[in-house]
Amino acid sequence: MTKHETIGADRAELEATMLAAGKAARDAAAILSRAGAAQKDRALAAMAAAIRADKPTILAANAKDMEAARVSNLTAALLDRLALDDKRVEAMAKGIEEIRAQEDPIGAVIARWERPNGLQISRVRVPLGVIGIVYESRPNVTADAGALCLKSGNAAILRGGSESFHSSRAIHAALVRGLKEADLPEAAITLVPTTDRAAVGMLLAGLGGTLDLIVPRGGKSLVERVQREARVPVLAHLEGLCHTYVDKSANLDMARKIVLNAKLRRTGICGATETLLVDKAAAATHLAPLVKDLLEAKCEVRGDETTQKVDPSVKPATEQDWFTEYLDSIIAVRVVDGVAEAVRHIEHYGSHHTDAIIAEDAETAEYFLSQIDSAIVLWNASTQFADGGEFGMGAEIGIATGKFHARGPVGAAELTSYKYVVRGKGQVRPG
Amino acid sequence: MTKHETIGADRAELEATMLAAGKAARDAAAILSRAGAAQKDRALAAMAAAIRADKPTILAANAKDMEAARVSNLTAALLDRLALDDKRVEAMAKGIEEIRAQEDPIGAVIARWERPNGLQISRVRVPLGVIGIVYESRPNVTADAGALCLKSGNAAILRGGSESFHSSRAIHAALVRGLKEADLPEAAITLVPTTDRAAVGMLLAGLGGTLDLIVPRGGKSLVERVQREARVPVLAHLEGLCHTYVDKSANLDMARKIVLNAKLRRTGICGATETLLVDKAAAATHLAPLVKDLLEAKCEVRGDETTQKVDPSVKPATEQDWFTEYLDSIIAVRVVDGVAEAVRHIEHYGSHHTDAIIAEDAETAEYFLSQIDSAIVLWNASTQFADGGEFGMGAEIGIATGKFHARGPVGAAELTSYKYVVRGKGQVRPG
Repeated sequence: MTKHETIGADRAELEATMLAAGKAARDAAAILSRAGAAQKDRALAAMAAAIRADKPTILAANAKDMEAARVSNLTAALLDRLALDDKRVEAMAKGIEEIRAQEDPIGAVIARWERPNGLQISRVRVPLGVIGIVYESRPNVTADAGALCLKSGNAAILRGGSESFHSSRAIHAALVRGLKEADLPEAAITLVPTTDRAAVGMLLAGLGGTLDLIVPRGGKSLVERVQREARVPVLAHLEGLCHTYVDKSANLDMARKIVLNAKLRRTGICGATETLLVDKAAAATHLAPLVKDLLEAKCEVRGDETTQKVDPSVKPATEQDWFTEYLDSIIAVRVVDGVAEAVRHIEHYGSHHTDAIIAEDAETAEYFLSQIDSAIVLWNASTQFADGGEFGMGAEIGIATGKFHARGPVGAAELTSYKYVVRGKGQVRPG
Repeated sequence: MTKHETIGADRAELEATMLAAGKAARDAAAILSRAGAAQKDRALAAMAAAIRADKPTILAANAKDMEAARVSNLTAALLDRLALDDKRVEAMAKGIEEIRAQEDPIGAVIARWERPNGLQISRVRVPLGVIGIVYESRPNVTADAGALCLKSGNAAILRGGSESFHSSRAIHAALVRGLKEADLPEAAITLVPTTDRAAVGMLLAGLGGTLDLIVPRGGKSLVERVQREARVPVLAHLEGLCHTYVDKSANLDMARKIVLNAKLRRTGICGATETLLVDKAAAATHLAPLVKDLLEAKCEVRGDETTQKVDPSVKPATEQDWFTEYLDSIIAVRVVDGVAEAVRHIEHYGSHHTDAIIAEDAETAEYFLSQIDSAIVLWNASTQFADGGEFGMGAEIGIATGKFHARGPVGAAELTSYKYVVRGKGQVRPG
């Protein structure tokens, strides 16, 4: 038995706590759904201020988590995700302010029309209800997810990773102060008060029917578990196996700049390019400079036969490489026979997340944009733009690759449903 | 073992058939997603013509189903749902033409904006993929669902009830002729070629990952099973426990006309009113006429104490009555203390489907419309308007009461997803 498992009385107690949290969140959601934009924005402003005021407390809590993480020999990448400093705390407060600055999605009339019988039909945005967020080491998800759910009139139940437990608790305390200052219920943003893993199973089961949506944020194994076990809808992406295709019509300078950025700006994010496809017709001119740029930037290149000829340090790519999301300074490179073969490659090996074409020829580009079945398709831009902030949503709770409900970056507007409001003058249905 | 169960080799064979159907549907969906509006509309026109041309064959097939149904002692209500005649066949053809007349949802730019860095972002409608429809006795669902899926660029896998097997097969044959005339693949609309119930389980399991959505159309037990077992998203409603609330400010003549229509126009549809709530402040003037109208129209009335005093034939309502979707000429009537108690009643007992207020006072009405958390809320109109056709969608594949993806009547536009198309001029992401 690991330290996180629970049996007998402990489990019953945990279950009671979790169900009570679900019930309180549902009640809070009913209040939030009727709260106006001004009240929610007041809470968001107070939350940002509280995060800033609590910076010393938050950093002290984070120091505790970091110490425990070092003792547990977490990897450098995980330590980096966990670590907070002045700048990152300020970024959290700014993030909340950006969410606050967005238009309130709730109550917006998405569409309105009149029927021949005079009925006035409007489609009006409403919140989803209660959203569960299951995440790993990044403590800032606590602030981002809490603020996005509040903006969209939803209650949030946050279940952070055990590594970031103290940090998340300190951040959560600041968020709750903000809620109280705006007379909103504390249960609008609940942090699961335990690192017990059994709590995740209870969230996935839907907390006795109180959860409307689960958003997992973290590695593939977490997302896979959530998608497999959840009895409520899930918005997520399993991986971001993103491609950049350089067409024969591509401007070489532009292609070099974009490929370097798409692969290496940050290698650990889901929008990082993992496979570079180069048009056979441009191989003679474009392939060598693109590969050499990457090698010079200390990126490992795994290429097909043509690519291997460019430089002796290019390693051979195996079939498995085309299926691999490296999240590291490694890229797979393949020469393809024009845009049609690029599309076939991406549709076969890709993860329907984000894919880009670099081309000057508009017809070729439009073919690519229409044929690639991914959440985001780009023309002459870096795949690293796959991000709610970059899309102008203020922030995102995640990126979804499924086609149900929301696809691509999920911001406040995507965390909503709608209802039909029909206004009549006494109409009855004939027939 | 009933005649519908399968074991051993039969089951393996069925599974192979079903998986092959799923694979063929997925391939067809890829073609449909790229088919233009003109080609799809050509198929829809040919489908309507084929239904008309095949009327004798369809009616002969239906006669076979009706004979078997009479032998099996199906209820009169079920026989009525199953029965086809000249008028109903013509209505199917007309329904397809109405779907054809709708705007093509695919490729539509839902939103478009430019970022400060010059990136042009568009949100473009795309199909969902492959949609499974599991239905019971109404053979016209074959035509409606097939046509709606085609219009929205989705492939359909239809699994009709065993009672309507021959009718559905004849209708399906006409649809397939229409597809062929427009050079679209037959597998765009697949009818499961067996009445074996194991096929439903395979659909609910997602056909090896090929299904993107399941829509159940039928009774509560079917919908419950689908919601419980499906491993793919489901759009449905379990029941339509609809309310009409008559406020003290209601115009009595209007209220009488609407209540009669809401309850009795057709009692078996999900938008039929099941509970009438009358404002205490209007009980003296409004309650008796409303109840007497219903009694005169041969509707059984089950009322609270106040309502029972109106007429000796009013039966006492039990707690269970407020939870009951009669789908019959029975209504539950309760006097409530104003709009706030009406809202509390509906939120406690209702099914979040369709609820109406009859009121002249706009403030009261707007309070009701905003506070009731249902897919459809109406002011001064009959709940029987809960219907995709009445909403102007041409037709509906069903009505959904969940908040995820689509809510209310589900037409062609709701059977879609979207993708982000981003056009740049060489932008890379800073930082």
